[in-house]
Amino acid sequence: MTRIALGVEYDGSHYHGWQAQQAGVATVQAEVERALSQVADHAVSVACAGRTDTGVHALGQVIHFDTNAERSERGWVYGANSALPADIAIRWAKPVKKDFHARFGAIARRYRYVIYNHSIRPGLYNRQLTWNYRPLDVARMREALPALRGTHDFTSYRGVHCQAKSPVKTLHYLEVFQRGRLIVIEAEANAFLMHMVRNIAGVLMAIGAGKAEPGWAGEVLAARDRRLGGVTAPPYGLYMVGVRYAESHGLPQEPFGPQWLPDDLSAWR
Amino acid sequence: MTRIALGVEYDGSHYHGWQAQQAGVATVQAEVERALSQVADHAVSVACAGRTDTGVHALGQVIHFDTNAERSERGWVYGANSALPADIAIRWAKPVKKDFHARFGAIARRYRYVIYNHSIRPGLYNRQLTWNYRPLDVARMREALPALRGTHDFTSYRGVHCQAKSPVKTLHYLEVFQRGRLIVIEAEANAFLMHMVRNIAGVLMAIGAGKAEPGWAGEVLAARDRRLGGVTAPPYGLYMVGVRYAESHGLPQEPFGPQWLPDDLSAWR
Repeated sequence: MTRIALGVEYDGSHYHGWQAQQAGVATVQAEVERALSQVADHAVSVACAGRTDTGVHALGQVIHFDTNAERSERGWVYGANSALPADIAIRWAKPVKKDFHARFGAIARRYRYVIYNHSIRPGLYNRQLTWNYRPLDVARMREALPALRGTHDFTSYRGVHCQAKSPVKTLHYLEVFQRGRLIVIEAEANAFLMHMVRNIAGVLMAIGAGKAEPGWAGEVLAARDRRLGGVTAPPYGLYMVGVRYAESHGLPQEPFGPQWLPDDLSAWR
Repeated sequence: MTRIALGVEYDGSHYHGWQAQQAGVATVQAEVERALSQVADHAVSVACAGRTDTGVHALGQVIHFDTNAERSERGWVYGANSALPADIAIRWAKPVKKDFHARFGAIARRYRYVIYNHSIRPGLYNRQLTWNYRPLDVARMREALPALRGTHDFTSYRGVHCQAKSPVKTLHYLEVFQRGRLIVIEAEANAFLMHMVRNIAGVLMAIGAGKAEPGWAGEVLAARDRRLGGVTAPPYGLYMVGVRYAESHGLPQEPFGPQWLPDDLSAWR
């Protein structure tokens, strides 16, 4: 039995997330398991680093599975990609030790939220970024960040159906970048609660639009009450950028996919 | 009667081009005319600067139409956008003089061809860029450019069904840029023949991949024979960036949409 880790890139627009709440709908997991089962010639079930919601994309989702089949790294990648739809791709495959686990072994996850800030809606990339027509003041958004960084009870930023055991998470990194009409929120934490990035994005956009003061992000946090938070921002602009594991696992470090803002931001490791 | 010029942005993935060769298929033109007719409250027919092929995108298509309806610039833009599908957007509207014509008044058109150069296919943006798995040598591609710049008979780069009166066009600008895994061919001409950018991209990719020498681009040009040219590159990575008109028409100069490589390349005017 060999354990294989894989890097998965996908456009979530046409899927009910990584894993569906209900049966009979398209999910990224089902497509990936179907493709890998075909290559392995036996039923494959996979574990992922983080379950993405409906419409959320991934540049660097990480998964693992166990198999008796003997295939080269190339064999897994090319075999699965020829069986996968065009909006899902395996970017790398690597045999790992039995103690590797895509979910429980993850030290940190990074997400990116890309906003297109313009009074007129876009025609291109309408499911790959979030359109906000209100002029956003990035300096105001940045003022709100220090209160959110670090270890906190993120109950106020937690989706109603979140099943995480603890609402306490550590936000190692939280920045806002601007490049022309694009505003990017980049966040890294040991783990994220359900809708946490989208709820942070919702609060930061309200602050950027002048509907709330920069201090509001910290007030919401301190209240530990989801009802006091902002709206959950749409999934379109959200990307799972990558997952960190102990270096001893020797997983690829390269950010693989085509990215919106490769210059500064892809250098995330 | 007022003549209105409009800037149109669209994702061509789900359309049989700007205007279809056959009836009963979805086209960008039909959607735009339907939406504008709704706003104008009378049947509207539009003329465009350049008919894009199936799957080709536009950041700055320019069109015009005549109307008796009195609407503000905002009224045309917001009214049409609320009637258009999410992958088509009107970005600006401006009343113009009767002597303005979107097609015949255009001084130059700019196109961009975006290549994702990686051994493994992408999952994201698979219809918004062209994947090439062969390592492309950008220096070789650049060596081929001088032979193509300027005024030439582009018969060898012309699609079979092209209906242009003359194959002689002036390529004012032709450059190849690289940013990480993205390679961008940027071309501006007084006008383009059918498939001209995609045929140039096909030849440049063959040269970049080492399948032909840099001098081949000029040899193909000199032969004036389409059969000696390269393959027509896929439409996915092709964007109509914008159209130039005499400044006296006072049309908006801003590149509107979200763009892949905004830093250098959007400053095209």
